[in-house]
Amino acid sequence: MSVQVAIIMGSRSDLEAMSETFKVLSQFHIEFEAHALSAHRTPDAVRELAEGLEGRGIKILIAGAGGAAHLAGVCASHTSLPVIGVPMKTSMMGGLDSLLSTVQMPRGIPVATTAVGASGAYNAALLAVSILALGDRDLATAYKEFRRNQTQKVLTSSEIDVAEILTEEK
Amino acid sequence: MSVQVAIIMGSRSDLEAMSETFKVLSQFHIEFEAHALSAHRTPDAVRELAEGLEGRGIKILIAGAGGAAHLAGVCASHTSLPVIGVPMKTSMMGGLDSLLSTVQMPRGIPVATTAVGASGAYNAALLAVSILALGDRDLATAYKEFRRNQTQKVLTSSEIDVAEILTEEK
Amino acid sequence: MSVQVAIIMGSRSDLEAMSETFKVLSQFHIEFEAHALSAHRTPDAVRELAEGLEGRGIKILIAGAGGAAHLAGVCASHTSLPVIGVPMKTSMMGGLDSLLSTVQMPRGIPVATTAVGASGAYNAALLAVSILALGDRDLATAYKEFRRNQTQKVLTSSEIDVAEILTEEK
Amino acid sequence: MSVQVAIIMGSRSDLEAMSETFKVLSQFHIEFEAHALSAHRTPDAVRELAEGLEGRGIKILIAGAGGAAHLAGVCASHTSLPVIGVPMKTSMMGGLDSLLSTVQMPRGIPVATTAVGASGAYNAALLAVSILALGDRDLATAYKEFRRNQTQKVLTSSEIDVAEILTEEK
Amino acid sequence: MSVQVAIIMGSRSDLEAMSETFKVLSQFHIEFEAHALSAHRTPDAVRELAEGLEGRGIKILIAGAGGAAHLAGVCASHTSLPVIGVPMKTSMMGGLDSLLSTVQMPRGIPVATTAVGASGAYNAALLAVSILALGDRDLATAYKEFRRNQTQKVLTSSEIDVAEILTEEK
Amino acid sequence: MSVQVAIIMGSRSDLEAMSETFKVLSQFHIEFEAHALSAHRTPDAVRELAEGLEGRGIKILIAGAGGAAHLAGVCASHTSLPVIGVPMKTSMMGGLDSLLSTVQMPRGIPVATTAVGASGAYNAALLAVSILALGDRDLATAYKEFRRNQTQKVLTSSEIDVAEILTEEK
Amino acid sequence: MSVQVAIIMGSRSDLEAMSETFKVLSQFHIEFEAHALSAHRTPDAVRELAEGLEGRGIKILIAGAGGAAHLAGVCASHTSLPVIGVPMKTSMMGGLDSLLSTVQMPRGIPVATTAVGASGAYNAALLAVSILALGDRDLATAYKEFRRNQTQKVLTSSEIDVAEILTEEK
Amino acid sequence: MSVQVAIIMGSRSDLEAMSETFKVLSQFHIEFEAHALSAHRTPDAVRELAEGLEGRGIKILIAGAGGAAHLAGVCASHTSLPVIGVPMKTSMMGGLDSLLSTVQMPRGIPVATTAVGASGAYNAALLAVSILALGDRDLATAYKEFRRNQTQKVLTSSEIDVAEILTEEK
Repeated sequence: MSVQVAIIMGSRSDLEAMSETFKVLSQFHIEFEAHALSAHRTPDAVRELAEGLEGRGIKILIAGAGGAAHLAGVCASHTSLPVIGVPMKTSMMGGLDSLLSTVQMPRGIPVATTAVGASGAYNAALLAVSILALGDRDLATAYKEFRRNQTQKVLTSSEIDVAEILTEEK
Repeated sequence: MSVQVAIIMGSRSDLEAMSETFKVLSQFHIEFEAHALSAHRTPDAVRELAEGLEGRGIKILIAGAGGAAHLAGVCASHTSLPVIGVPMKTSMMGGLDSLLSTVQMPRGIPVATTAVGASGAYNAALLAVSILALGDRDLATAYKEFRRNQTQKVLTSSEIDVAEILTEEK
Repeated sequence: MSVQVAIIMGSRSDLEAMSETFKVLSQFHIEFEAHALSAHRTPDAVRELAEGLEGRGIKILIAGAGGAAHLAGVCASHTSLPVIGVPMKTSMMGGLDSLLSTVQMPRGIPVATTAVGASGAYNAALLAVSILALGDRDLATAYKEFRRNQTQKVLTSSEIDVAEILTEEK
Repeated sequence: MSVQVAIIMGSRSDLEAMSETFKVLSQFHIEFEAHALSAHRTPDAVRELAEGLEGRGIKILIAGAGGAAHLAGVCASHTSLPVIGVPMKTSMMGGLDSLLSTVQMPRGIPVATTAVGASGAYNAALLAVSILALGDRDLATAYKEFRRNQTQKVLTSSEIDVAEILTEEK
Repeated sequence: MSVQVAIIMGSRSDLEAMSETFKVLSQFHIEFEAHALSAHRTPDAVRELAEGLEGRGIKILIAGAGGAAHLAGVCASHTSLPVIGVPMKTSMMGGLDSLLSTVQMPRGIPVATTAVGASGAYNAALLAVSILALGDRDLATAYKEFRRNQTQKVLTSSEIDVAEILTEEK
Repeated sequence: MSVQVAIIMGSRSDLEAMSETFKVLSQFHIEFEAHALSAHRTPDAVRELAEGLEGRGIKILIAGAGGAAHLAGVCASHTSLPVIGVPMKTSMMGGLDSLLSTVQMPRGIPVATTAVGASGAYNAALLAVSILALGDRDLATAYKEFRRNQTQKVLTSSEIDVAEILTEEK
Repeated sequence: MSVQVAIIMGSRSDLEAMSETFKVLSQFHIEFEAHALSAHRTPDAVRELAEGLEGRGIKILIAGAGGAAHLAGVCASHTSLPVIGVPMKTSMMGGLDSLLSTVQMPRGIPVATTAVGASGAYNAALLAVSILALGDRDLATAYKEFRRNQTQKVLTSSEIDVAEILTEEK
Repeated sequence: MSVQVAIIMGSRSDLEAMSETFKVLSQFHIEFEAHALSAHRTPDAVRELAEGLEGRGIKILIAGAGGAAHLAGVCASHTSLPVIGVPMKTSMMGGLDSLLSTVQMPRGIPVATTAVGASGAYNAALLAVSILALGDRDLATAYKEFRRNQTQKVLTSSEIDVAEILTEEK
């Protein structure tokens, strides 16, 4: 099968958080590719990447960036494919700057934004899965199975042994 | 064609902003339905709606809510379809509370979040269009045409007659 | 005596903060139970738990969650018992996201919110004590005694030996 | 029946928001009294009021204040009854100052905080109802009825006539 | 004399604030041009404009935008001329989103950011004047004269007639 | 008696808020003078004013400014008299920028900061009264009388006629 | 000489920051006393302390507290002496909650607020020095000397040896 | 060649971040000087420095400061040269206080503000380079070369070896 999801991050320092997407997509056997490109330092490469996605059969772009996080928006301006933006955590305000820079897009150029950081990256991949699943019955089944397992896993360890905890703390 | 997008809002007072989605979806001839249901006041109805979406052939859910904006998250917990969350503007902090309540989802249950208010609603509908376009060549063509027109419209009025403005202000 | 307070937390990672409630309730000999359930990953289990509380004679629910902290609100939508929400600390904005997601509830579904984190959990348990004390004279007496002791403890160590501190720092 | 709830607000200018509590409590036939007293301008009167509540058979205190909103906390320091704090909206940051001043209580003196402004006041009264209902079967029944009606009311008007709205806007 | 400053704004709705730059530059007899172009809706036009500035002898670019305000950053990525960014006021958080999106640029691509809104636009033009004045002795003289007049104007009306004000208010 | 308090504000547009200080100081028969001077547009005049205060027998400086509110800090750097800073309300974040710019002074140069806006100005004058009262027994007596009256005024109108309000609203 | 300044802090955990005041006051040979008392856990002791200050010849109160930092405001409500509030740093929002709770006082009860944390405590003591210096010529001289030395100390080490730093980093 | 850029920082503790400017300016062979002077502790030295810059042939001032970061603004009030402000990171709100204090300048006195901390300092130096390059063809060439290299460096390492990362994590 061909590459279906492209992942782009503003810097290799975003790799720790963004690699969450790799794990999720691999788990669902979705082909993907990943790039570290900066909206500001390599604008032409970003544009070329974004403009070329559709022609190469790619269906979704996930873009992670921090600070004045323009990457997702810049990509979205160059493609009509769905773009998912993941705000990276920053030392200033914990990523609120990244979140606002990613989510407050003007009318006409949508970016689907997730939570800040690694959880957001993880969910960005799941969002891609849910979108691809609309046209792929097997993937839909696998995603539902994943969701059921996830629920089951929480349920299995949901009871808390209060006595044990109170004893431990003594 | 059957209903492809369901729209849910936490209160009829969100209708002014959320009706932006109606206009966009109509323009693309996408069938949709809309509900005013509260995650907190009508949790069972919300759950039933969310759980029943897929069986009814609906593909995407757009959920708009304000304050402790749980609606998109609650819906996402009851369906594996893509859920798009639109934070409504509030008088406290201009909707930052809605934005954080919508976007900061935990690992495992993704919500695709847009900007706060009417622009966010408008873009939520476009995001739905771009997702549906992945499996609908005509829609893809129409969306690209829309994006080209949008670009053209900005370009047409991009030159600013500075002399005129300076005169007006005198 | 039967279980009077149920405690629910969104994840086992909230246990360190939320176990403050265990200590307080134990100290007052109040029976309680605790669950780690996610509003988003296990919505049905949360609903069943919330809906079943009253029938089992439980009187108060304490719910701790972080980020898009919907847990207290979701529980409150499924029970008419008093629900106390404890926002968990997060790496983004120190828990402000959790606080806003917990406290900004819409008209009609109240959640009694406490401070962020462990102090908030501690006080949530005391709030439960003060509520239960309305119908339990012995508990009321014990709570007043607790408050007096707390006051006394602060008073006992209220004088600061300035000379000693200035010497130490040299 | 005697007065069960006391309401205190920091200034008569809080009356518009705080009178939401009057409507709710009246609707449930709960006796209450209301005072406009300032934690800072009339500290002794506030203390006397708070200290005297229990002796007069009052069970719950609702305190609404804005800015450096100390009123709920000061009251809570003088009574072991449940205290519900309602942060008033302010022109600075929409009431975030009031919210933080009300909710971030230290260990040992709990305040049950609600949303900012009129909605918060409305829910503070419902929270009082749910607490009183623990010891009053009739009130419990009435509150459940209220919640069912509230749900029903939302459901009755939940369907949105999209065609009509699109026509109107033309 | 040829055009020395180009002004770009994300939308014609930014014209009210951004026209402050027109007045200042006119006052100093600096040739300028102005464009309404969106970083997101017209990315290619923005890029072409930015890339072509230097070849046309333009020396400074002033870019005003709001929300996910990527315009200044996108321009800065396509030119090595000094770029001044003016964050536009927004209804969400008064422009804090615009400010963070404009100022939090990554290493390597500088944007000189001013205050939010009309004052920021006014100062952006003055900043351009001060930069151009480095290579234009007459302009330097004119700017110093402007600054002296500005000081003088404040000094002329610096004394406040307290008696009058107290009388007025009675 | 000679002038004891100097008031400085960054702009005549701050006069509405800052004139609260005039009323309070007049009421206590304290001689004062007022200036509209900008820390940035008239730095030398501000310095001269601040440096000359003590030689003219003035005891306290009240400085009100908004935005990058440097006025109080600049004055404090040029005098060892007590400086009281009043942050003015701004359209961005309601004055939080002014507050942080005024209060977050570095070690060694204190500024006594009050609340944002007119209330802050009012209290700045009272703070000046309380400081002057340390060396003026009559003023101390007058200030205590003022505080007692203030308390009395709140107490006189503290009872709220709930029945009347409920009737009015019908 | 008798005690002139009283220092109160909400908890012994504030001692590290608040002991900055001890060092400054000692350096100026100002007699002071210090107490760890909680506005919420020991309200009566706080009130008695605040009410008794003036009778004991104390002139200024410095109050440091964090979170819902009511201590300075509560003290100010019980004395007409100048009260200086020092917001303590908190893990949530770095002390912004403490700052807003301390500074946003209502009309009529002033609190002179300083920066958050240890710097704020240091400056609170200097503010007390500057106030006491109004009635104590020797102290005024000493404070001016302190300020001159402080200036001198910065000047002595103001030149930065750029070459050395560039070498070091290699 | 003579000194072209002066760098000033509010405290030697800002040196770690501000020395980023040294590296950049050295790399471009631009002569510069650096000072640690406080706007508040050494206002006269700051004024003298700022007023004397132009006479000494210096063209640009870079000022870094934190908290109530008045340094850039104070310098800008004493010179008509371009002033670049770099907000230092603080423990309270990660430097948001510094950012707002630096950027929210009033009409008439511009400060070109960069990002918070070391990245901001780095970009402040690049901004100076781009300004100086307007009048120095060699520098313009060197800066363009720098930008091309920067782009190239990102491109060289832009491809991410997903397989390797997935293997590593196992």
